[in-house]
Amino acid sequence: MGKSAEDVHPQKAFGWAARDSSGVLSPFNFSRRATGEVDVSFKVIYVGICHSDLHFIKNEWGTSDFINASNPAVPGHEMVGVVTEVGKKVQKLKIGDKVGVGCLVGSCRWCENCGNNLENYCSKLVVTYGSTYYDGSPTYGGYSDIMVVDEHFAVCIPDNMELDATAPLLCAGITVYSPLRYFGLDKPGIHVGVVGLGGLGHLAVKFAKAFGAKVTVISTSPNKKDEAINHLGAHSFLFSRDPQQMQGAAGTMEGIIDTVSAPHPLLPLITLLKTDGKLITIGVPDKPLELPVFPLIMGRKMVAGSGIGGMKETQEMIDFAAKHDIKADIEVIPMDYVNTAMDRLHKGDVRYRFVIDIANTLKPA
Amino acid sequence: MGKSAEDVHPQKAFGWAARDSSGVLSPFNFSRRATGEVDVSFKVIYVGICHSDLHFIKNEWGTSDFINASNPAVPGHEMVGVVTEVGKKVQKLKIGDKVGVGCLVGSCRWCENCGNNLENYCSKLVVTYGSTYYDGSPTYGGYSDIMVVDEHFAVCIPDNMELDATAPLLCAGITVYSPLRYFGLDKPGIHVGVVGLGGLGHLAVKFAKAFGAKVTVISTSPNKKDEAINHLGAHSFLFSRDPQQMQGAAGTMEGIIDTVSAPHPLLPLITLLKTDGKLITIGVPDKPLELPVFPLIMGRKMVAGSGIGGMKETQEMIDFAAKHDIKADIEVIPMDYVNTAMDRLHKGDVRYRFVIDIANTLKPA
Repeated sequence: MGKSAEDVHPQKAFGWAARDSSGVLSPFNFSRRATGEVDVSFKVIYVGICHSDLHFIKNEWGTSDFINASNPAVPGHEMVGVVTEVGKKVQKLKIGDKVGVGCLVGSCRWCENCGNNLENYCSKLVVTYGSTYYDGSPTYGGYSDIMVVDEHFAVCIPDNMELDATAPLLCAGITVYSPLRYFGLDKPGIHVGVVGLGGLGHLAVKFAKAFGAKVTVISTSPNKKDEAINHLGAHSFLFSRDPQQMQGAAGTMEGIIDTVSAPHPLLPLITLLKTDGKLITIGVPDKPLELPVFPLIMGRKMVAGSGIGGMKETQEMIDFAAKHDIKADIEVIPMDYVNTAMDRLHKGDVRYRFVIDIANTLKPA
Repeated sequence: MGKSAEDVHPQKAFGWAARDSSGVLSPFNFSRRATGEVDVSFKVIYVGICHSDLHFIKNEWGTSDFINASNPAVPGHEMVGVVTEVGKKVQKLKIGDKVGVGCLVGSCRWCENCGNNLENYCSKLVVTYGSTYYDGSPTYGGYSDIMVVDEHFAVCIPDNMELDATAPLLCAGITVYSPLRYFGLDKPGIHVGVVGLGGLGHLAVKFAKAFGAKVTVISTSPNKKDEAINHLGAHSFLFSRDPQQMQGAAGTMEGIIDTVSAPHPLLPLITLLKTDGKLITIGVPDKPLELPVFPLIMGRKMVAGSGIGGMKETQEMIDFAAKHDIKADIEVIPMDYVNTAMDRLHKGDVRYRFVIDIANTLKPA
């Protein structure tokens, strides 16, 4: 990881970090770089707990082997805060502005993807934590008091938004918004399915409804029907283990947002699609799924993936959410509850996102 | 199958049929319906041998259990001929016109798919052979002397086209043309991969080249390189079992037409795609393929299917082929060679399509 972070990074920071793959977080003193010419520094107010944070600190994807006592890792990529300092070339933000940072803090800025505002698909992207920044230092996430970021990777949070319920939009929100837009599932009157009702799924329902779609929640838990329809306002509900219900909805959907990361059969979902229907997977199963080809051919259907979104679209998503009053359903927790929250998240015991109240509850050791 | 065909069908016909699932064809006398108000009758001149014909007569898809001595099946859905009679409401064809029929002879004509000129995805479609027509009679394909068809399902063959090399376009041609168009792989300068160099693949190369794409053939047979580049004019060739060659082309293709029906890994193909790249499967594996999801998510890539094409687009494809002088590479054979041809097709020993010379070699028993 090159130079020692402390040598070159003068801003003292404090947060909670993983020191092994137990999944347990503990307080951690570290430092961040000085506010560069195009950087903003900000005080973190809230940070959402994304399921990726849990995968990461338990090394469930095999991508965080490097975590140890000498290299603690600070998770958190759904952060909102208030700007405290701006570099002299910063254009879109000033001190006191509300700001958000999601999964990305860097990309090459010159490749075809970056040129198309798809920094999220840049092969040199730098993610918000667990990666290495251009100066060789490790990136640390938002379970911490302060943040420094290139303003290109910060989004402006309009004043009318509630900061706590906005934090999860920075990852979960853009992850569902981007495919709804790109794959044309943002048209009034179309029928969109949402598989899985968690952090991603509940926001998919809200965005799809705001676009004017008819929304059907598809779940293996029949007891989510009431929640889906009466609380989230989905138009209908399908219990995916009831073949009769599923058959009754065959060939009715223009698209499906599939948020499930556990291995699951695709054929029942493909069957729900109309001709030219699109099944978009945004969960990340750790094993390949079984793809039946003939049902795709018989209706020119597709299975596609989508990962977060670019910075331009992330700002567009935030502005759309502000206009349509879209916010995550959250449970705000104090910092020292984080390990309990992780246990509950592992069990699926959250409706639908934990958000850590950093400003009021993160206390230096 | 309702009424006896002979009772209600006055046009005496003669062809070759399967009488069991041995894959062996033999001469067969049958009959076709009278030329209805919107029908045309025509003399079949040439018919292509599609690999589906072989799957069908050997019941390899489990869809032709009904074939027996009492219900012989006449294959063939790549037929061209000359119109001999037209119904009084026929508008687009007259006696003497050259005409082609592909995989479809009927569809409901009022559903959403039919309204969108996608008769090929109509749930009530009637295929050219091995199906049941609206009058309850079995449909018989083009390994026969005459054909009767609703003019909606006949395409006009321009006078400048060679009939023999045009026949395979009616199935193989539209099967590759339609996804190239629908998925936007018809733009000059883009890079299109073609997996498998058979009846479908060689036409995919020709159409993609005519659209102005850079075309790369991807094959498990390194000895197809010379053929791909020097004979078919592909711009480059990848031996798919050479990881170094495949890695060198990673992230370079806007789309891939995958014609392979044997089970095969998708990951190496997905890796060849750029962001937003499209892997289109048009072969029909009899088992599900393994779909790795993460590589799709990391580049908003898709795997889609596509099956033949609608009638409007089939005519458009024929007109495009006429304009760009696209024809199949064929080996013309006499009717009584058909069983040998099927054996050779099974072994992949054909470059690239057998076409039966019906007019000159089909002799009544």
